[in-house]
Amino acid sequence: MNKKHQNIKVIGFDADDTLWVNEIYYRDAEKEFANLLSAYETHNQIEQELYRIEMKNLPLYGYGIKGFVISMIEAALLISNNQASNKTFSRIVEIGKEMLNKPVELIDGVREALDAVARDYRLILVTKGDLLDQETKLEKSNLSKYFHHIEILSEKKPANYKKLLQHLDIAPDEFLMVGNSLKSDVLPLIKIGAHAIHVPFHTTWLHEQVTEDECNQYNYHTVSSLSEVLGVLENENN
Amino acid sequence: MNKKHQNIKVIGFDADDTLWVNEIYYRDAEKEFANLLSAYETHNQIEQELYRIEMKNLPLYGYGIKGFVISMIEAALLISNNQASNKTFSRIVEIGKEMLNKPVELIDGVREALDAVARDYRLILVTKGDLLDQETKLEKSNLSKYFHHIEILSEKKPANYKKLLQHLDIAPDEFLMVGNSLKSDVLPLIKIGAHAIHVPFHTTWLHEQVTEDECNQYNYHTVSSLSEVLGVLENENN
Repeated sequence: MNKKHQNIKVIGFDADDTLWVNEIYYRDAEKEFANLLSAYETHNQIEQELYRIEMKNLPLYGYGIKGFVISMIEAALLISNNQASNKTFSRIVEIGKEMLNKPVELIDGVREALDAVARDYRLILVTKGDLLDQETKLEKSNLSKYFHHIEILSEKKPANYKKLLQHLDIAPDEFLMVGNSLKSDVLPLIKIGAHAIHVPFHTTWLHEQVTEDECNQYNYHTVSSLSEVLGVLENENN
Repeated sequence: MNKKHQNIKVIGFDADDTLWVNEIYYRDAEKEFANLLSAYETHNQIEQELYRIEMKNLPLYGYGIKGFVISMIEAALLISNNQASNKTFSRIVEIGKEMLNKPVELIDGVREALDAVARDYRLILVTKGDLLDQETKLEKSNLSKYFHHIEILSEKKPANYKKLLQHLDIAPDEFLMVGNSLKSDVLPLIKIGAHAIHVPFHTTWLHEQVTEDECNQYNYHTVSSLSEVLGVLENENN
């Protein structure tokens, strides 16, 4: 946050792994996928192959569970050299449904943190992934009432955020983004002159990881829990 | 359209089968799917089973190609009694990719129709389905410049449209929706006091079909091509 923090009018919150647990369900799914195919390759090779196929398909499928499921099907065909059993494909489809049906597990202190900032700021939810899946999670979370607007982006790049701010009709320095991903929730905001607070989550998808070098030149706050966000805003105002 | 047509400020356009061809790609995919499994069931039974599974999965997957692909995988497992070949699953994944990679084929007269109404009205795109897929199609179509806003809804029900109008900060009678689906683009609008013009497309997904009875009580215009939309608006103003 720079000196213009007093200007902040709108706070955007990331959803997955910022408000609620998400990434660990993908890690669990990958482990089970590796078990299903353990007759053909080592766990390590299977997970690498799956990741390679996910990355290859990302421009076509985008983020979210459904694309992940189809990538698992494709990876199973490849890893097994077209010898995978129907049971394997059936289980992959089921894994996807279980992920979509998971109850929403809020991260500690989320409700209190939103309560605290909602008094003075307009809050919006800014996430990526499947539209329906994110709407369903928001509904299950009972957090809808805090958010004036829900924005689902196909990518969280500077250009997407710029468009969002235009649509909200606010200047970049009137916007603060809060999230767990340096790559998606922090760096693109700093690059367009907006503010960002990083709230790391213990598990980060390889695709979202950035090097220390990539962050060094940028100015943002890091807090260990969402409950510290209001404190940062108040300190900046003193 | 009722007497308050002069109020119209914003026109929402549906995308699939209103601006560009879509439904026939699903019909083609279903035919090829039936061919893949023709050793197990009749074409008719296969298509019925696939539709049943799609409808069962709709609340979980939502609209779009990725959910359709996973439903084809599930249907193949069921129809073949878990005897389907890896080749079948591989081809299903490919069918999905081919659908996502299809070039965008604009429906006749679309560009001229948008040109004509864009002078006097603010246009938005209101669609459902996969976010990334719809964004990609809009980009490929070169129609982005006509639209002030793109709204992807998980469902096109009265409540979703109400929320959209609140978000656009306009009254229902200031909004006109134009689209090919009576169920999604016309009836829900009339129900909330907005306007609608129906532009039928020659192919309608079973899920989008409504009976004549359901439409009888409602007041909306039907035109045979998008190029007639401006004419309807001008006639109403005379």
